Amino acid sequence: MMNLLTEVMAKLDQAEPDIIRIRRELHQHPEVSFHEQWTSQYIRDFYADLDCTVADFGYGYGFVVDIKGGQPGPALALRADFDALAVQEDNDLPFKSQQAGVMHACGHDGHTAYMMVLARTLIGVRDQLPGSVRIIHQPAEEVSPGGAKGMLAAGVLEGIDNVIGAHVMTSMPTGTVGYHVGATQTGRANFTITFTGKGGHASMPQLSNDAIVAGSYFVTALQTVVSRRIDPFDTASVTIGSFDGVGSFNAIKQAVTLKGDVRVMKESTRTTIRRQIEQIAHGVEAMFGVVAKINYDDNYPVLMNDAKVTMQAVHNIQAAAIPQIQAVTDVGTQDPSEDFAYFAQSKPSTFLYVGCDPDDGQSHPHHSPNFLMNEDCLLIAAKAVGAAAIGYLRGRE
Amino acid sequence: MMNLLTEVMAKLDQAEPDIIRIRRELHQHPEVSFHEQWTSQYIRDFYADLDCTVADFGYGYGFVVDIKGGQPGPALALRADFDALAVQEDNDLPFKSQQAGVMHACGHDGHTAYMMVLARTLIGVRDQLPGSVRIIHQPAEEVSPGGAKGMLAAGVLEGIDNVIGAHVMTSMPTGTVGYHVGATQTGRANFTITFTGKGGHASMPQLSNDAIVAGSYFVTALQTVVSRRIDPFDTASVTIGSFDGVGSFNAIKQAVTLKGDVRVMKESTRTTIRRQIEQIAHGVEAMFGVVAKINYDDNYPVLMNDAKVTMQAVHNIQAAAIPQIQAVTDVGTQDPSEDFAYFAQSKPSTFLYVGCDPDDGQSHPHHSPNFLMNEDCLLIAAKAVGAAAIGYLRGRE
Amino acid sequence: MMNLLTEVMAKLDQAEPDIIRIRRELHQHPEVSFHEQWTSQYIRDFYADLDCTVADFGYGYGFVVDIKGGQPGPALALRADFDALAVQEDNDLPFKSQQAGVMHACGHDGHTAYMMVLARTLIGVRDQLPGSVRIIHQPAEEVSPGGAKGMLAAGVLEGIDNVIGAHVMTSMPTGTVGYHVGATQTGRANFTITFTGKGGHASMPQLSNDAIVAGSYFVTALQTVVSRRIDPFDTASVTIGSFDGVGSFNAIKQAVTLKGDVRVMKESTRTTIRRQIEQIAHGVEAMFGVVAKINYDDNYPVLMNDAKVTMQAVHNIQAAAIPQIQAVTDVGTQDPSEDFAYFAQSKPSTFLYVGCDPDDGQSHPHHSPNFLMNEDCLLIAAKAVGAAAIGYLRGRE
Amino acid sequence: MMNLLTEVMAKLDQAEPDIIRIRRELHQHPEVSFHEQWTSQYIRDFYADLDCTVADFGYGYGFVVDIKGGQPGPALALRADFDALAVQEDNDLPFKSQQAGVMHACGHDGHTAYMMVLARTLIGVRDQLPGSVRIIHQPAEEVSPGGAKGMLAAGVLEGIDNVIGAHVMTSMPTGTVGYHVGATQTGRANFTITFTGKGGHASMPQLSNDAIVAGSYFVTALQTVVSRRIDPFDTASVTIGSFDGVGSFNAIKQAVTLKGDVRVMKESTRTTIRRQIEQIAHGVEAMFGVVAKINYDDNYPVLMNDAKVTMQAVHNIQAAAIPQIQAVTDVGTQDPSEDFAYFAQSKPSTFLYVGCDPDDGQSHPHHSPNFLMNEDCLLIAAKAVGAAAIGYLRGRE
Repeated sequence: MMNLLTEVMAKLDQAEPDIIRIRRELHQHPEVSFHEQWTSQYIRDFYADLDCTVADFGYGYGFVVDIKGGQPGPALALRADFDALAVQEDNDLPFKSQQAGVMHACGHDGHTAYMMVLARTLIGVRDQLPGSVRIIHQPAEEVSPGGAKGMLAAGVLEGIDNVIGAHVMTSMPTGTVGYHVGATQTGRANFTITFTGKGGHASMPQLSNDAIVAGSYFVTALQTVVSRRIDPFDTASVTIGSFDGVGSFNAIKQAVTLKGDVRVMKESTRTTIRRQIEQIAHGVEAMFGVVAKINYDDNYPVLMNDAKVTMQAVHNIQAAAIPQIQAVTDVGTQDPSEDFAYFAQSKPSTFLYVGCDPDDGQSHPHHSPNFLMNEDCLLIAAKAVGAAAIGYLRGRE
Repeated sequence: MMNLLTEVMAKLDQAEPDIIRIRRELHQHPEVSFHEQWTSQYIRDFYADLDCTVADFGYGYGFVVDIKGGQPGPALALRADFDALAVQEDNDLPFKSQQAGVMHACGHDGHTAYMMVLARTLIGVRDQLPGSVRIIHQPAEEVSPGGAKGMLAAGVLEGIDNVIGAHVMTSMPTGTVGYHVGATQTGRANFTITFTGKGGHASMPQLSNDAIVAGSYFVTALQTVVSRRIDPFDTASVTIGSFDGVGSFNAIKQAVTLKGDVRVMKESTRTTIRRQIEQIAHGVEAMFGVVAKINYDDNYPVLMNDAKVTMQAVHNIQAAAIPQIQAVTDVGTQDPSEDFAYFAQSKPSTFLYVGCDPDDGQSHPHHSPNFLMNEDCLLIAAKAVGAAAIGYLRGRE
Repeated sequence: MMNLLTEVMAKLDQAEPDIIRIRRELHQHPEVSFHEQWTSQYIRDFYADLDCTVADFGYGYGFVVDIKGGQPGPALALRADFDALAVQEDNDLPFKSQQAGVMHACGHDGHTAYMMVLARTLIGVRDQLPGSVRIIHQPAEEVSPGGAKGMLAAGVLEGIDNVIGAHVMTSMPTGTVGYHVGATQTGRANFTITFTGKGGHASMPQLSNDAIVAGSYFVTALQTVVSRRIDPFDTASVTIGSFDGVGSFNAIKQAVTLKGDVRVMKESTRTTIRRQIEQIAHGVEAMFGVVAKINYDDNYPVLMNDAKVTMQAVHNIQAAAIPQIQAVTDVGTQDPSEDFAYFAQSKPSTFLYVGCDPDDGQSHPHHSPNFLMNEDCLLIAAKAVGAAAIGYLRGRE
Repeated sequence: MMNLLTEVMAKLDQAEPDIIRIRRELHQHPEVSFHEQWTSQYIRDFYADLDCTVADFGYGYGFVVDIKGGQPGPALALRADFDALAVQEDNDLPFKSQQAGVMHACGHDGHTAYMMVLARTLIGVRDQLPGSVRIIHQPAEEVSPGGAKGMLAAGVLEGIDNVIGAHVMTSMPTGTVGYHVGATQTGRANFTITFTGKGGHASMPQLSNDAIVAGSYFVTALQTVVSRRIDPFDTASVTIGSFDGVGSFNAIKQAVTLKGDVRVMKESTRTTIRRQIEQIAHGVEAMFGVVAKINYDDNYPVLMNDAKVTMQAVHNIQAAAIPQIQAVTDVGTQDPSEDFAYFAQSKPSTFLYVGCDPDDGQSHPHHSPNFLMNEDCLLIAAKAVGAAAIGYLRGRE
């Protein structure tokens, strides 16, 4: 069966210009989460004449592409996300974003591009496939509730045994593939709190109730959640990312709205933090006589990579001896959250990392207006996921 | 000479409908500070055919109307301001503001209306006046640097002996006139501080420097300026009226901008507060490693009412036995600031208060979207300032 | 009757060495509030052979000396306090405190010394006095509930028309006498709050509830009482004078105890502050899950000097033309509190100030270990209060 | 050689009453760190007639007992600490502490008791030992700089290959032995900061500089060290264990002294935290104009258990099939710090845990006034460490 793997790898080598071309087209047309109409249609058009089945799932613009193998075998899903971010691109590129204030600043354009070409390649050899492959083109990874949740609710993993996904990473050298077993990416919650006091003239504080003061004391007290309530050996972060107390110099502000972000690696920690945040907000109410309205959204779970699926993928990638891959390494835990975690909750899954450091000597983290990937990573991603997929199907033969 | 006063009072009685009509026209056409083009022209047109001299002074749309008396005597200025506020009116009136987001919410429409009719009345009797009267139609009282400063710099008080001004007050019953001698209204400063840290991903606080945290600790520490640095017998307030830390849930904010307001009754207190605010901002820099950019604007002085000019005005108003005025009382110090204070720094002056409580059982403070005056106050203002002016001129005969 | 005043003034001149000797003896033997056993006996012994009546009143070591005049007239009380402070004297004096950790650091030794000699002098002329004088030797002025309250409860002012008291003041030049009419010295409250969390090992904060953290956030929030809840034109101070969170490096503190002090000039402000402090303490409970135990003691009232009694005293002192007194001036409000305020609540009274600046170029405030008075003030106090008393009695003839 | 192990185990069984008797004698005579004169002499007396060499090392009352084996082999050190804590015992025991305010509240009495009897047993079989054993009786484990440091400086590990130590643990069931490889117990730093402002009268805050306010804001800002400066995946705690701001109600406090505790699992984190604490203290200086005096003591390192030495000990204990031991388990990281870490820095070492939960249904953590061990743990400790030692020596045969 090594012939199948060799054939797929060779076809991917030939198709690299297609991957890059597609990625650049997507890069020029970014769309924010839950609004990816053009993108979704662009991908669908690609499959129009191919020997596969396309089906909608769930809310948003997501859909799947089913590739039925010619021989019996397991059912594997491969997932790629396609939404962009509300970021104004600050790169000078021929294929720079043409959408003001929107940018593929996380690399989902690359995810989708390599997956489309990998899918086409697998369709081309589908007679030889022992089992089936479902390509999940997922919208809205960036924004709660996320696209995965809705697709799952609509049954996207029914009949599927396992899922493999991957993310390009500027923090890892191009030419490396990363993995980690168990709890790997943080779970997340988001919350909005509005503190309402009483507005008034800045010269008469005694007649008002200053919401900026209440909100500021809240932020300082909030630091104790991580510093005093969490086991030092546990993982937690609580951030106020937005403090909207915009007003005029000479008026006391009636209300402020704060938006917060929580990251954890254990569900019990999630519960502790939520309770503490609510307690501190109620404390601010009692302390300053303001009213706190809290909207708390526990969203993405901790991403748990299945040990067997992960190590199987790792061995399959290593066994494929892909010349562009220098190392496959355990990269440990990763701070960001990922709604692939919902798929991993539903079926034993693994989420891989594909190094894409542009080696330009600068650090352009994901979500930055200067985010840039080394496009060599695209072929690597296609080959790594392709090798993992073929090895996986073969493994059950 | 009592005949002159009687004549002026009678003419004002007859002109009350004019005052109200003018006030309503102004109310429908509010313009924010330094942008009162229509208003200024409207007032100038009123004087077009009258026996007086109109002259520009300083920046903005301000001008003066000089009424030369038929007999020798002192030179008195009467000041009325004509700017409106960036407030969306929430009253249901036939003459409601027709300018979205702009409103005469402080009563300057009334000030201007009564002063125009009083000026016309004085022009009508100018042969009998022992001395001269300069009507100052001042723009931009609400916003630093204020209209008074520019008119003064252009020499608006050259040759003037004293100034009288007045403000309608919802906090005082209609039918009362108020005064206070010495330090009466607070001096003011405003400041803008931007704290710049380093933005980043909410899940990786160690790689960022959270500006919302720095700004919040600043606000809490700022409370010590009034609570610990000022003599409890002294007057001071420090307010952060705007905290702009608007961002997204899941990103650590790079920079926040705060706008503040300071009120004092002594210039030495002003110095102490400025030094303390700067010290606390530098403390936040040292504490959190952020950069603080401070823009501090010491503006309106403490309003000092001259004892002699004030008590003379009070006695003249009382002596006029104006039937609509039940009481002339010392109303003590007033929290808000007023750029009339610049005139009072330049020449011995007095600033009077004219009760305009609409007696509707509700509290509609100045600057509120529901601010409303009892229009009876307009005739009272015209008569009180008219009686004060005539008595003043007569007093030097 | 000028003969009587002249005679008393002359006798006081002769007795100045006695006043100084007594003051120095008292200075060497200070006793803290409610423990002035030696002091009280020392004063009583002084009166043993004099023609007067000594009587106990109330709790503590206080007593009165009644001097019955030979002629009918009003009943005036003169009050002097005799307690010392828990301060270790840091002066190098031949008559330095011989009691470790206790010192007459507020000048009550001087109050008592001049009053004893003045009393003896009045006793010597009692046949000529038109009315009666009650000398109130009061204990425990420094510490709540204060000595005045108990003496009043025991009826010390029954039959008394008015009361005069005086305090030496290092902040005023020696040779001046001060006064103020109306609200003059602050009212006071004191409170103790214990926050109880849960102690534990410093390495495991999640298992404890850190009381030092709770107490510290309380202190920072407490600053808003004065900065945001009080009219800038009103007077208020709130101080935490003691934060007892003494523990070991490596244990999380279970409980902390804070002691606080409040000063006001209006009883309504007292109510506002108490409510706010309690609200903030309850806010800390809600915020951190600690338990707050509050013990709040509203004690000394605002000192209200009666206009008539005060101005009568001022005129009598001025009329006496005492050569050692250069000026009798209105010194305005004074920050400290004084339990003489209880007497002033009960009967129209006045509390005078006698300058005692040692003119050594250094500032040694009251309660300082370096507090020192210019002893010239003692004769001045005796003469000023003596002249006020004689003038008062004469005024009703 | 199994005969040697069997013989030692049997002798320990017989000596259990001795272990318990010694432990109780030590328990009655606790002495705080660096003051263990009686304890040290008590232990020395025990060895007086035994066939071994006793030698002093370093500062304090520590010493070693050298047991020279009859055959060639490696040199192993076994360490037991013997200091007690400044805690008032709250247990009702026949052998309760007879020293007021001092208690063996961490179990070092048990460590010393089992080690003395194990040493005596090994001395009894020394002819059969392949190698040598050095018993380290260490003082002052609890208090920085700790007893280990001085003994090391004096060369206590010269010629020693490896070290084994053990701690009884109430958090683990009696009958279990625990271990962990790599970074196991936190490193520690302690610091003292004094903030000096300016004292004064509570009614005049403007003339003082309130050190309690400065110290409280410091505590609130300090929370950001852990919440914002440390990777959420890293381990850190910062505690203020003592806030000494004890004063009187009505005086503003001149100076406060805070004592703090820091725990880390990486030396780089130690550096970050120290820098941040110093930065925040300097920020408080700049912010409030106080002076901060910082005394920072980086003391115990992170305890690193050597993988080989640890697993060898585990296997030897398991192989000994000690009937009292139900399980030998990896117990993971432990929050507290331990100066055994210095030995482990110097030579590959392991630190074991011996469960001693009294199973009385209550949680009495170490350092609690109610701390109590199940004395069954003592024989278990002797056997476990004995088996590890014999197996270790045998392993090199």
